[in-house]
Amino acid sequence: MTIRKATAADFEAIWPVFHKIASAGETYAYARDISKTEAFRYWMELPRKTFIAEEDDRLLGTYYIKTNQAGPGAHVCNCGYMVAADARGKGVATALCEHSKKTALELGYKAMQFNFVASTNEAAIRLWKKLGFETVGRLPRAFNHPALGYVDALVMFQWLENEGRN
Amino acid sequence: MTIRKATAADFEAIWPVFHKIASAGETYAYARDISKTEAFRYWMELPRKTFIAEEDDRLLGTYYIKTNQAGPGAHVCNCGYMVAADARGKGVATALCEHSKKTALELGYKAMQFNFVASTNEAAIRLWKKLGFETVGRLPRAFNHPALGYVDALVMFQWLENEGRN
Repeated sequence: MTIRKATAADFEAIWPVFHKIASAGETYAYARDISKTEAFRYWMELPRKTFIAEEDDRLLGTYYIKTNQAGPGAHVCNCGYMVAADARGKGVATALCEHSKKTALELGYKAMQFNFVASTNEAAIRLWKKLGFETVGRLPRAFNHPALGYVDALVMFQWLENEGRN
Repeated sequence: MTIRKATAADFEAIWPVFHKIASAGETYAYARDISKTEAFRYWMELPRKTFIAEEDDRLLGTYYIKTNQAGPGAHVCNCGYMVAADARGKGVATALCEHSKKTALELGYKAMQFNFVASTNEAAIRLWKKLGFETVGRLPRAFNHPALGYVDALVMFQWLENEGRN
């Protein structure tokens, strides 16, 4: 598995993965009917950087990194990760997240925040905890799940700088 | 005090208030050196609506309302409020917030979230609590205060629909 910066051309392979995840409406805060053009803007243009994981020219997953809040919040980044359905169980999300933490430090960020993790997305929450994130907020009924209705969303956070909190 | 929709022309009066608050860097997640053009985009163009409070043609304060997260999060709005320095102590923030809660329901939102309240902004936190918001998250050292360094930021939330949580 190789992780490298995504080019605009890579979006042809990213879009089917993005579309499947967004249209399911179970994990990401994108409109379920988001267009390819809008998806390109959110995943490729607005973030500071976008990466893909690939193996034998096949897309396994992708992530973006961006500044979460401007000005007094600009030392905290936000990332989003997507893994192709047929690439699950290979540690792709873990590899992408570890890579994103290194990228964050290289870009000068001190911390990483996930703003809106559906509380029903238990596999993701377990993984983020294992990778050092803590739940710092619980947004009551903020996520409208297509099958379960209004469920809580979590805010997860990790300080990345070596010196930690001291 | 009258509260009405802001026009593009109103931004001439909004900008000195915005600029003073943003450049202080103590409360809002805007770049401290934000330009007037960028400020216009963030306060007037990107939100769904922007309002002003005025008295005898003098601007007392302003707020915007926008969707906080797309798709599964689109029933939750986000607002930002600014009060002119010479209009403090007149209940302007309270009036703006009460107005925004009505506007939110009119626009079909079910809840309101503040994403990034500096924990040092005690007057604001006290007011939001009085107006029904609860602290649902605490982002450790996520706010870089110009005098105090890294301080926590709060996430505050209020369900607005009459039926509440049932």
